Amino acid sequence: MSFNKIINQFRKTIDTNLKKIYFQGPSNMVETANFVMSAKGKRIRPVLTMMSCDVLGGKVEQSIDVGIAIELLHNFTLVHDDIMDGDSMRHGQPTVHKKWDIGTGVLTGDSLLWLSLHVLRNVDYDREQILLKFIDAIKIVCEGQAYDKMFESKDYITTNEYESMISMKTGYMIGLCSELGAICSKSDADIQQKMKEYGLEIGKAYQIQDDYMEMYSTEKIMKKSLKSDIELNKKTYMVCLASDIDPIGLSDILNSRQSSKHKMKLLRKYFEELNVKDRVIEEIDKSFKKAETILREIDFKKDYLFKLNEYLKNRRY
Amino acid sequence: MSFNKIINQFRKTIDTNLKKIYFQGPSNMVETANFVMSAKGKRIRPVLTMMSCDVLGGKVEQSIDVGIAIELLHNFTLVHDDIMDGDSMRHGQPTVHKKWDIGTGVLTGDSLLWLSLHVLRNVDYDREQILLKFIDAIKIVCEGQAYDKMFESKDYITTNEYESMISMKTGYMIGLCSELGAICSKSDADIQQKMKEYGLEIGKAYQIQDDYMEMYSTEKIMKKSLKSDIELNKKTYMVCLASDIDPIGLSDILNSRQSSKHKMKLLRKYFEELNVKDRVIEEIDKSFKKAETILREIDFKKDYLFKLNEYLKNRRY
Repeated sequence: MSFNKIINQFRKTIDTNLKKIYFQGPSNMVETANFVMSAKGKRIRPVLTMMSCDVLGGKVEQSIDVGIAIELLHNFTLVHDDIMDGDSMRHGQPTVHKKWDIGTGVLTGDSLLWLSLHVLRNVDYDREQILLKFIDAIKIVCEGQAYDKMFESKDYITTNEYESMISMKTGYMIGLCSELGAICSKSDADIQQKMKEYGLEIGKAYQIQDDYMEMYSTEKIMKKSLKSDIELNKKTYMVCLASDIDPIGLSDILNSRQSSKHKMKLLRKYFEELNVKDRVIEEIDKSFKKAETILREIDFKKDYLFKLNEYLKNRRY
Repeated sequence: MSFNKIINQFRKTIDTNLKKIYFQGPSNMVETANFVMSAKGKRIRPVLTMMSCDVLGGKVEQSIDVGIAIELLHNFTLVHDDIMDGDSMRHGQPTVHKKWDIGTGVLTGDSLLWLSLHVLRNVDYDREQILLKFIDAIKIVCEGQAYDKMFESKDYITTNEYESMISMKTGYMIGLCSELGAICSKSDADIQQKMKEYGLEIGKAYQIQDDYMEMYSTEKIMKKSLKSDIELNKKTYMVCLASDIDPIGLSDILNSRQSSKHKMKLLRKYFEELNVKDRVIEEIDKSFKKAETILREIDFKKDYLFKLNEYLKNRRY
């Protein structure tokens, strides 16, 4: 089957399963949880879980619940992060706290978290190990969010500190996807470990891509609010690189009395002049190359993951 | 050892362990999580877990982590509920979102939730079963909170609906305490089940006591905000009973243009006239009696739980 066909098939399976997950419970919670789950997410995480299981010779069906759990956990973080960042749009629809209220946003995030744990009850292979790894991931992703929030109040963050934060906030969970996919395929521990490292690399590339696109793409293409990063003094890979080279020039722009929209325009030009734009593109490329090197060390039944790399490299949102 | 001595000893163990739980991580998360954990909570839940394990002949040490996990889960719900209810005081100190901001409150609640799951990693007996029961409890307690929130917008809730909500929001978790205590003591499944039923009864009594005290006690004694219930149109056991008997009289008071403080005064008098105050006291007593009947069916090594019943019956906050 072609790569495009398989990724669409996986996505369809995920969307179909997500729709069936929560229909009996308090109507307010059922409504808002389903509102989030029915949004048009990219489903990269569960696709990666299912694909990892598949290419290692496992039964895809055995990885669906794990993939769904990770997607739910990811959405839990989005709903709560949107409250913290005051974002009003996500996946082309209003954020939960915007459509309803903050209390509903808090509760909806909580509901997605327990749903994710609840889905793992259905796993029938190595469930305890999967649960424990999942619990670790919740810790790491919340701590990553705490660092992200902490960095907002700091003027200067090194690229190392930044990389460490994004590896917690984004990379770790993408590493978990490929690792758990390997566990579901019943692969050995060393393959699980390699698959985790591969996931961490594409997770890093993925987050830096996001940073890049939030600067050089549009809200329409990205289907989410973009200016809150500037307004909240959020660190991005580009901001960290620029402040290494020219901290004064950067803070002149960030602290100027311009509108967020105009600041974005100034930053775009400034990052090009400083060569930061090119360096970010190189960094993304480097991580994808590392990921590919790791993949070459593994004996796969199918070549989908190499194609997934290409697919992710070329993504527009 | 006397009951008073043992309960104090258990509390001390819990407080000491809570202090050691989280010291390495993002400083903002470590600070706020410890702020919550160091508050002077009553620790009734972990005390019940440890005591249940003890009186059934188990090793108390084997129940500490489970007790700590439940206390953390309980605090997760408090921090998020306080955001939803806009409460500004809890355990005699400001609530997290009041002392810091809403985003910090959201993140702190999340951190207490993952900490609770993380602590369960240390359990070395029947860990998977305990994890699964714990995950069920997270679901139930969140759904209970959703009903509680939903009821705010309704004029009329039957006492049955109310009892069902509080059994989810409060009773289930207290039932979990005694049930998991029994599991930690390595008791048989039928004892686990009886202990759960016993916990559900005292959980019901405990919540109705809270309702009663929030009406007839003071903020100083209760160490938390009391008027938000009236302001948010929260249902309490007394409100449900009164609206069964005299819905018009009740709504006259609730919808009057008086201050919350004055409404409380009117309600107190009104509940006495309607006999609702006495009926609530009877209801609390009935649940404690049922709990005692269940306890009498179990063969205990020590009589502490009967004394715990007396202790809870007489609590002032």
